[in-house]
Amino acid sequence: MGAGDVSKRILLGRKLRSSQLGETLLPKRIALPVFASDALSSVAYAPDEVFIMLSLAGVSAYSFSWKIGLAVALVMAVVIASYRQTVHAYPSGGGDYEVATVNLGKTAGTTVASALLVDYVLTVAVSISSGAQYAASAIPALQGHEATAASVAVVLLMAINLRGIRESGGFFAVPTYAFMVAILGMCAYGFLRMMLGDLPEVESAELLIKPEPGLEEPLTTLGLLLLLARAFSSGCAALTGVEAISNGVPAFKRPKSKNAATTLLLLGMIAITMMVSVIVLARQMGIRYVDPHDLDRLTYGDGTPVGGDYEQHAVIAQIARAVFSDFSPGFYLVVTVTGVILVLAANTAFNGFPVLGSILAQDGFAPRALGSRGDRLAYSNGIVFLAAMAIALILAFDAETTKLIQLYIVGVFVSFNLSQLGMIRHWTRHLATEKDPAVRRKMARSRVINTIGLAMTAVVLVIILITKFLAGAWITILAMIGFFLLMRGIRTHYDQVAEELAADEDDKLMPTRVHAIVLVSKLHKPTLRALAFAKATRPNILEGIYVAADPAATNRLLDEWDERRMDVPLKVLHSPYRELIRPVVEYATEIRRANPRGVVAVYIPEYVVGRWWEQLLHNQTALRLKGRLLFTPGVMVISVPYQLRSSRIAQERELRDDFRVRPGDLRRGQVDKRDDGQVPR
Amino acid sequence: MGAGDVSKRILLGRKLRSSQLGETLLPKRIALPVFASDALSSVAYAPDEVFIMLSLAGVSAYSFSWKIGLAVALVMAVVIASYRQTVHAYPSGGGDYEVATVNLGKTAGTTVASALLVDYVLTVAVSISSGAQYAASAIPALQGHEATAASVAVVLLMAINLRGIRESGGFFAVPTYAFMVAILGMCAYGFLRMMLGDLPEVESAELLIKPEPGLEEPLTTLGLLLLLARAFSSGCAALTGVEAISNGVPAFKRPKSKNAATTLLLLGMIAITMMVSVIVLARQMGIRYVDPHDLDRLTYGDGTPVGGDYEQHAVIAQIARAVFSDFSPGFYLVVTVTGVILVLAANTAFNGFPVLGSILAQDGFAPRALGSRGDRLAYSNGIVFLAAMAIALILAFDAETTKLIQLYIVGVFVSFNLSQLGMIRHWTRHLATEKDPAVRRKMARSRVINTIGLAMTAVVLVIILITKFLAGAWITILAMIGFFLLMRGIRTHYDQVAEELAADEDDKLMPTRVHAIVLVSKLHKPTLRALAFAKATRPNILEGIYVAADPAATNRLLDEWDERRMDVPLKVLHSPYRELIRPVVEYATEIRRANPRGVVAVYIPEYVVGRWWEQLLHNQTALRLKGRLLFTPGVMVISVPYQLRSSRIAQERELRDDFRVRPGDLRRGQVDKRDDGQVPR
Repeated sequence: MGAGDVSKRILLGRKLRSSQLGETLLPKRIALPVFASDALSSVAYAPDEVFIMLSLAGVSAYSFSWKIGLAVALVMAVVIASYRQTVHAYPSGGGDYEVATVNLGKTAGTTVASALLVDYVLTVAVSISSGAQYAASAIPALQGHEATAASVAVVLLMAINLRGIRESGGFFAVPTYAFMVAILGMCAYGFLRMMLGDLPEVESAELLIKPEPGLEEPLTTLGLLLLLARAFSSGCAALTGVEAISNGVPAFKRPKSKNAATTLLLLGMIAITMMVSVIVLARQMGIRYVDPHDLDRLTYGDGTPVGGDYEQHAVIAQIARAVFSDFSPGFYLVVTVTGVILVLAANTAFNGFPVLGSILAQDGFAPRALGSRGDRLAYSNGIVFLAAMAIALILAFDAETTKLIQLYIVGVFVSFNLSQLGMIRHWTRHLATEKDPAVRRKMARSRVINTIGLAMTAVVLVIILITKFLAGAWITILAMIGFFLLMRGIRTHYDQVAEELAADEDDKLMPTRVHAIVLVSKLHKPTLRALAFAKATRPNILEGIYVAADPAATNRLLDEWDERRMDVPLKVLHSPYRELIRPVVEYATEIRRANPRGVVAVYIPEYVVGRWWEQLLHNQTALRLKGRLLFTPGVMVISVPYQLRSSRIAQERELRDDFRVRPGDLRRGQVDKRDDGQVPR
Repeated sequence: MGAGDVSKRILLGRKLRSSQLGETLLPKRIALPVFASDALSSVAYAPDEVFIMLSLAGVSAYSFSWKIGLAVALVMAVVIASYRQTVHAYPSGGGDYEVATVNLGKTAGTTVASALLVDYVLTVAVSISSGAQYAASAIPALQGHEATAASVAVVLLMAINLRGIRESGGFFAVPTYAFMVAILGMCAYGFLRMMLGDLPEVESAELLIKPEPGLEEPLTTLGLLLLLARAFSSGCAALTGVEAISNGVPAFKRPKSKNAATTLLLLGMIAITMMVSVIVLARQMGIRYVDPHDLDRLTYGDGTPVGGDYEQHAVIAQIARAVFSDFSPGFYLVVTVTGVILVLAANTAFNGFPVLGSILAQDGFAPRALGSRGDRLAYSNGIVFLAAMAIALILAFDAETTKLIQLYIVGVFVSFNLSQLGMIRHWTRHLATEKDPAVRRKMARSRVINTIGLAMTAVVLVIILITKFLAGAWITILAMIGFFLLMRGIRTHYDQVAEELAADEDDKLMPTRVHAIVLVSKLHKPTLRALAFAKATRPNILEGIYVAADPAATNRLLDEWDERRMDVPLKVLHSPYRELIRPVVEYATEIRRANPRGVVAVYIPEYVVGRWWEQLLHNQTALRLKGRLLFTPGVMVISVPYQLRSSRIAQERELRDDFRVRPGDLRRGQVDKRDDGQVPR
C-alpha cells in the first residue's frame, strides 16, 4: 500500500464517518418554497385559461372573470382547510394515499395512487409547456418551436434528476420568493397606478373579440352556465400542488403537524392573493385573450383580423409589460422568474414520483426495488418513465397549455374526493371511541370541515368531468385505469409469491451432507482462495472441477495440480464444444440426484475488477453460470471474490453513489448533515 | 406435480438425451455451397466495376475488358493454389490468422484479424448494397430507395442471426447451385446463340460513352496503365471469400484437408469460369456501363445525353434480359438467384464474425465471453455491432457498390500477403528439420507456390493501395488500425490481470474460522432453507441478520422467531432510512476487521422466478447486495436459491437456448445430430 493509497484510505474513512445519513428538518420559511412551487406556478397559466374560456362568448363575458377567480379562491380555501386536518391526523407523510388506504381500503388507495401518478406526468407536461411559452415571449427565436424547446427542457430536467441534484432549501427558496415578490410587486404597483388613475392598458386592449359562432349575446341561461363552468374548471388548475405539503410533514421542524398546517395556510393565502390580483388587474387593463388556435377571432377596431403574425403573450407577460412600461427590467424579471418557477414545479413531479413509488413499493403495489433507498436503477427507471410520458404528451399536444389543461386536474380532484371521504370516515371512527369532550368537539369540527370539503370537491369533480371529458379528460381516466390495473397486478403477484413461500414445519430440515465442488479454470490466486474457503467450511466431500475443452491445457493444469501438491482431488469434465455451463450444471444435478437429502455447494472463484470496460471483459461466464445454477434444486452457489487492485475504483464509485442525494430526499427530510455539504469525490 | 407436468418432464428429458451436440461433417457437394456464396457472389458486381473503370476512357477501352478478366483470373488461380497449401498445413480452421500468428508472431496475427474483421463489415455492406440494386432492377418501386432497402435487409439478417437459424446444408446448397446453374446456363446459352450468329445486343448497346475529360484518346502510356490498374483492382473484388474454406477445414468429411483442397479447386474453377464468361459475353453484346453518378456521360447516337431518367441495370441483368429475350422467366430467375446469393454472401459475414471472435477470445484478443459457445449475449453483441457498422457504411455511401468497393479488398489482400509470408516461413522451418526426400520435395514445391502467391498478392496490394487509397481505402486502413489497437489493449489487460492473479505459496493459507450470517427479510421458506444450509456447513459462528427499517415489522419478526423456536440468534441492524445494503456491508466489514484471518460467509436466500417481468419485481436488492459484498475483502457470498413454480419457465427457456444453433456453427462442424432435427420447444 503506497503513501497515496494510505492517504486515500484515511480520507475516505473520514468522509464516511462524517457522512452518515441524517435528518435536516425544514423551518417554515424554507418549507414554504420547497413545497409551494407547484401550487404557486399555476398562476402563470390558470388566469389565461379562464380568459380563453370566457372569450368564447366575446369580451362582454370578461365581466365574469373576477367572479370565477373568487369561486376558484373559495374552493382553494376549503381544500386548504381540509388538508390542514389531514396533516394533523396523518403526520407520517403518506398523504392522500395513506388516508384513502387506511379509511377506505386498498382499492381507494390504489385509485388515489393512480390519480397522483397521472397527475405527476401532467404537472411536468403542463408546467414545462407553459414555461416554453414564457420563454418564447422573451426570446422570439423560440416562437413556433415551443414543443421542441419543452421536450429539451424535460430531457434536461430528467438528466439533472438522474445525476442527483443537491437539493437544498436555497435551491427552492431563492426562485420561489423571487417569484412571489415579482408577481405580488407587479400587482401592487399596478393597483397603485390604478388608484393614481394612471393604469396603462395591456397591448391587446384595443382589440375586439368575435364570439364563437353560437355563443353570441344574448346567451341562454344554460349556455352561460356551461361557459362559466368551463372557465371555472380550467381555473381550478390553480389547485394542483396544494396537497404536496400533506406528503411532506416528516420534513418539517417540530411541532411537525402544526408547522405544516401553518405553512399550508400561508401557501393558500399567497396563492389566492396572486390569482385574484392577476385576474382583476388583467381585466382592468383591458386584456383580450383567446385560444392560440383561434387568433382570427381577435380583430382590430375596424374588424380586420389580427392575422397569424400576431404574437399573443401570456396574461402575466402582458400585464408586466404594461405595468412596467416605465421600467422595462421589471418585465424581464417577471417573465424570467415565472419561467423558473414553472421549471421548479415540473421538478416537483420528479421529486414526488419516486417518493410515491417508494410508498407504493412498501405496500407491494410497485416493484419492491423502488422501496429501498439504495436502488439507483429503480429510481432511474421511474424518472426516465416520467420524462418519456411527459415528452409524449408535449409532442402529442404540441406543447399547448390550453389543450393539456383539459387532461389536468381530473386526477387531483379524484384524489381530493377520496381523501376527504377518507377523512370523514377517520373522524367518525375516532369519535366512536373518544371520550374527552374537548377532543370530541375538535374532531366534530374537523369532520364538518372535511364534509364541506367533500361536498365542494365533489361538485367541482362533476363539473370537470362534464366540461372536460371529451376535451381530453378521458385520456387521463384511461391512464388512471391502466396504472390501477398494473398496481393491482403487481400486488396480486407478490401475494401469490408470499403464499407459495409461506413456511411449513418441515422447512427446518437440515441437509444431511454437503458436497462441495470448486470451479477451477486456472491455478491462480482466486482459485486457491476459493479452495481454502471451501476447505474452511469442512464439507463432507470437497473436489475441484475443471471443464476441459482443450487437451493441452488440461494436461498443463493437471501437472501444475500435482506439482503444487494440492490436497483436493480434481475432477475433469469433458466439453468438446467449449461449453462451460452445461457440464457443471449437469454434474451438480447428478450429485444431487445420487443424494437427494444432501446439498451441493458450488464455489465459484471470481476476481473483481473496477472499471466498467473491465467488467465487460471478465466474469461474464461466472455470472451466467450462477444464474443457471440457481434454477437447480438442492444447490447453493458461493461466490468467492478476489479483489484486484482496480476494484477499488468501483468501490469508491459505489460509496459516492450511496451518499448522492436522490430526488425527493429533501421533502422526506432525508439528506445528509455533513459539515462540508459536499458529496465525497 | 400434475399429469401435465409429468408428461412435460418426460418429454423434456427425452429431448435432452437425444440432443447432445455433435459433429455433422460436410461432404464436398455440401461444403462447396456452404463456403462458396461469398466468393461466387462477387460475379454480381466485379464485372460491372471493371466496365465502369474502363468506361472512363470511352468505349474503346472496353477492348481491354477480357484482358483484365484474365488477369484477375490468374491472380485467383494463384491464390487458390496457395490456399490449397494452407488447408493441408493448418487443418485446424484457424486460417490466415493462425498461419500469421504461428509463423510471424502475434503482431502479424492481430493485423490479419483486424483486416478480416473490417472485411466482414464490408462484405455485408457491399453484398447487400449490390443485392438492393438487383432488387431495384426487378422491382421498380425500390428505385431511389436502395439505401433504405439495404438497411432493412441488414436489420432482417441481423434479426435472423440473433434468433439463431437452423443452418443446414440445404439452406446453402439450393440457392448456391441455383445461382451456378443460372449464371453458367445463361452464359452457355449466350455463347450458343453467339455461335449460331444470333447473339442479341444488350439494352445499352446503341449508346455512346463520352470519355472523362483528360482521358480522351489517345491516352499516354502512364494514363493507360493507371486506368487498367484501377479496373484490375476493382475486378479483384472477385477474390474476396476464397479464404473462407481455410477457416472451415474441421467441418469437412475425412480426409478433411484433401477434401477441403479439392473443394477449393472446384470453387476457383467455377468462379473463374463465371467471371470471364460474363465479361466476355457482356463485351460481345455491346455493353455500355458507367458510374451511376456519371449517367450524363452516356449519350444516344445523336450525342444527346440519356439523362437522369435512364435506369442503368447491372451487367448480369442486362445480359440476362437480352439472352433470354425469347424466354423472360430466365431473366427473373437470374436476377432472383443473384439477389439471393448476395444475401447469402452477407450472411457469411454474420457466420464468420463470431467464429473469428471466438478464436480471438481464446487467444485473449477479444472479450473472453466470445470464446465459450454458451454466451449468447456475447454473440448477440458481435452480431449487432457488425450490422450497425454495415448499416452506417450503407447509409454513408448511399448503398452505392461502386463507392463501397473502393474500401473493400484492401483488408483481404493484407491478410493474403501476411498469410503467404507466413506459409513461406512455415515451409522453410519444416524444411530445416525434414529428412525424407519425397516430403522435402513436396515442401519445396509448396514453398515455391506460396512464394509466387506472395509475389503476386504483394503486387496486387500495391496496385490497390495506389489506385484506391484516396478513394476510400484509407477508411479501411484507419478501421484496421482501430481494431488492431483495441485487440492489443484487451490482450495487455488480460496479461496484466493474469500477472496480478499468479499464485504465491502463501495463497493456500486456510481461514482460521468461518463466521456465517444469514440475511433474513421474512421467515419464509427461502430463509429457512438458507438457515438450514448454513447450519449444514457447521460454521464457527452462525447468526441471522435482519435490517430493520420499521419497528412494527421488526417486532413481528422477532415474535415469530421466538414462536418458531429458531435455534439461531437473530441480530437486528437498524436502518432508519430504509437502506438495506450499507448496514450489511458495514457489519460484514466489522466482523472481518475483528478477525482478519477469518472469513465471513454471507448467506442470501433467493427465490427464483421464471418470467422476465417477475425478475423485474424480485431480487433486485439481493443482486445489488451481492455485487457490493464482492468488493469487501474476506467475504464469500452464498446464494441459496428457492425455486418457485414459475422458475421452470426460465429453466426450459435456457435449455432451448442451449440447443439453439448459433451463427457459424455449421462451418465449424458443430451442429447437433438429433434425429428429428427440431429444436425442443
